Amino acid sequence: MALIVQKYGGTSVANPERIRHVARRVARARALGQQVVVVVSAMSGETNRLIGLAREIMPEPDPRELDVLVATGEQVTIALLSMALMDLGVKAKSYTGGQVRILTDDAHTKARILKIDEQNIRADLDDGHVVVVAGFQGVDETGDITTLGRGGSDTTGVAIAAALKADECQIYTDVDGVYTTDPRVVAEARRLKSITFEEMLEMASLGSKVLQIRSVEFAGKYKVKLRVLSSFEEEGEGTLITFEDDEDNMEQPIISGIAFNRDEAKITVLGVPDRPGIAHQILGPIADANIDVDIIIQNVGADGTTDFTFTVHKNELNRAMSILKDQVQGHIKAREIVGDDKTAKVSVVGVGMRSHVGIASQMFRALAQEGINIQMISTSEIKISVVIDEKYMELAVRVLHKTFGLEQTPA
Amino acid sequence: MALIVQKYGGTSVANPERIRHVARRVARARALGQQVVVVVSAMSGETNRLIGLAREIMPEPDPRELDVLVATGEQVTIALLSMALMDLGVKAKSYTGGQVRILTDDAHTKARILKIDEQNIRADLDDGHVVVVAGFQGVDETGDITTLGRGGSDTTGVAIAAALKADECQIYTDVDGVYTTDPRVVAEARRLKSITFEEMLEMASLGSKVLQIRSVEFAGKYKVKLRVLSSFEEEGEGTLITFEDDEDNMEQPIISGIAFNRDEAKITVLGVPDRPGIAHQILGPIADANIDVDIIIQNVGADGTTDFTFTVHKNELNRAMSILKDQVQGHIKAREIVGDDKTAKVSVVGVGMRSHVGIASQMFRALAQEGINIQMISTSEIKISVVIDEKYMELAVRVLHKTFGLEQTPA
Repeated sequence: MALIVQKYGGTSVANPERIRHVARRVARARALGQQVVVVVSAMSGETNRLIGLAREIMPEPDPRELDVLVATGEQVTIALLSMALMDLGVKAKSYTGGQVRILTDDAHTKARILKIDEQNIRADLDDGHVVVVAGFQGVDETGDITTLGRGGSDTTGVAIAAALKADECQIYTDVDGVYTTDPRVVAEARRLKSITFEEMLEMASLGSKVLQIRSVEFAGKYKVKLRVLSSFEEEGEGTLITFEDDEDNMEQPIISGIAFNRDEAKITVLGVPDRPGIAHQILGPIADANIDVDIIIQNVGADGTTDFTFTVHKNELNRAMSILKDQVQGHIKAREIVGDDKTAKVSVVGVGMRSHVGIASQMFRALAQEGINIQMISTSEIKISVVIDEKYMELAVRVLHKTFGLEQTPA
Repeated sequence: MALIVQKYGGTSVANPERIRHVARRVARARALGQQVVVVVSAMSGETNRLIGLAREIMPEPDPRELDVLVATGEQVTIALLSMALMDLGVKAKSYTGGQVRILTDDAHTKARILKIDEQNIRADLDDGHVVVVAGFQGVDETGDITTLGRGGSDTTGVAIAAALKADECQIYTDVDGVYTTDPRVVAEARRLKSITFEEMLEMASLGSKVLQIRSVEFAGKYKVKLRVLSSFEEEGEGTLITFEDDEDNMEQPIISGIAFNRDEAKITVLGVPDRPGIAHQILGPIADANIDVDIIIQNVGADGTTDFTFTVHKNELNRAMSILKDQVQGHIKAREIVGDDKTAKVSVVGVGMRSHVGIASQMFRALAQEGINIQMISTSEIKISVVIDEKYMELAVRVLHKTFGLEQTPA
């Protein structure tokens, strides 16, 4: 009998009507003869309501007590979903994180799972129950309630699937899978039947926010078969996230998708002396101010000077510029510092590009044919990113989607 | 160092402002050098909100899951109160019922406490913490969450006081103690410095709803010193509930208070054959319909017939009358059945009456002097109740309050 872990997020259980909808879906899986563990988040808005209450009491809430407080959010959902299942005649039983015993470290509000005791869950499954588990929470060695941090319910789902050696972990969200790119930008965007973990990580970090990165890493580590599905659509098999070394990935297409992101601004430090240590002198103060940096580029210099460019979140542009002008420019004798927030990043992602040369040139030619100037280039093993003028972003995504034939279902 | 258990109900923790108010009161007790355990209910309205959600999902919510659901109410309060204490610089730590390990039986929604493990609480107290415990909840042998039923937070407070052998269990409510009668009826009503457990039980069941009866019984069983105080007034020492056999009760006044209740209706079955088994034939169908009966009176008969009278809640009068007319009257050949919902019950309560004759005649004379007719009389060891026309209720209470000198503080 197949054992499936299904995870539903906050919008999927936002109110009693939606909880009943989830129950019907779970009941269908049972009717197909599957054993089912359901992992749920708090009803959407509930976690924020609780945090708001805490802040009214204590501006910087104590982490141990904050976990006691917000853990009630998922506890409410597991009880309601179990009732909804019973109301359909399906045997069901709820578990808090502590009741499963999802053992975590004691890093309150951002705990990491150490061990899951799956004995009770397995006994209930064998007894014909659907087991409903509170996501996002656990207990530490001393029995204190902990939480895994935002989005931790995905991690709970994957961790339980790993502990139970489940056949599949299904993540239900408000999209019905992972697409070749955003369908709002490219009408021909196509849902991928499968995508590799590595591509998923690149897609997620590039802005296709379907899954929590941490849960994907976790699934990769424990070889959990992960599938993204829509909780609102009845049909569809979503997108399976696979291991690159699976046999059925032999026919993996070269390029899986086009990701994009218009949240990054570009900063260029011009006329920097080309000597060792200069990158650290520029980026050290930025890191000290807790400003995240994404792409970093330094070209070989001429005349003893070079230009140094990097990107930060647009919200941080002004702060980063001030730091550079106040603390760095005079010190390193840079000629000029230029900021630009009219930029966008477009990336081509695919594990296949490792064994196929010429993807980069194909990409650059397609952009050139449309008159799109490339400002920065950054590459990894399975992606090529370019920074361009943001006004060309949609055009670039459409052109690249077509160039790599992503609208066509692979043979 | 004195060890105090303080229990605050839902209205005392209804919002962040009131929670901060409770924290200040707890902080004052700490400043006096007391060790403090605080037991709290859910914020007022929260339990009903949760039950409403459950009923939207499942008309008759599953008891196990209902307990999982409603137990979140107190869990929210313990976290918020602990934060409020920390915000005042007081070390504090919260415990759910399961974390204390308040072991109960598995009778979900009305569980009974079997055992409390006080080791962790005591260690935290000795470490200088205020310990904040969720009322109303526990866990059974298998680790399932249970609740004690409505008002169970009082019971939790008393049970923890018993387990810790606390010096006092203070129940904070929206009244500042137990009064000789309702001050809204008799302006001269006086707060009692102390009252015995037995009197308290009679007062509570007669309608002075200050404490849950079950918690009072529990306190009596484990000899816990119980004090009722106002959570809204800063001053006042409330009312101490004592054991009748305490030495300091030697000067207990004869009468402690006048209780009253206008919720009862009277039913008289006239012309009943005076033979064995008749009471069962009348009340059996009433009990089968789950209608509670309070006072029951049957007089000696004449001419082979008698009249049988009892009281039920006014809401149940019509149902009880139908049952009697449909199922009983013909069967037992009763002449007539008369219902009356214009009645009130007034009771004089006091342990002292056991050793003082003449209390009853003093009571009846006082009522007669005001022209108040007595319809029914019922007595126990420490109370005398009369049923009268409800329009005379306030008058009767005032007259009896004065007759027994309750407005005067005892010497």
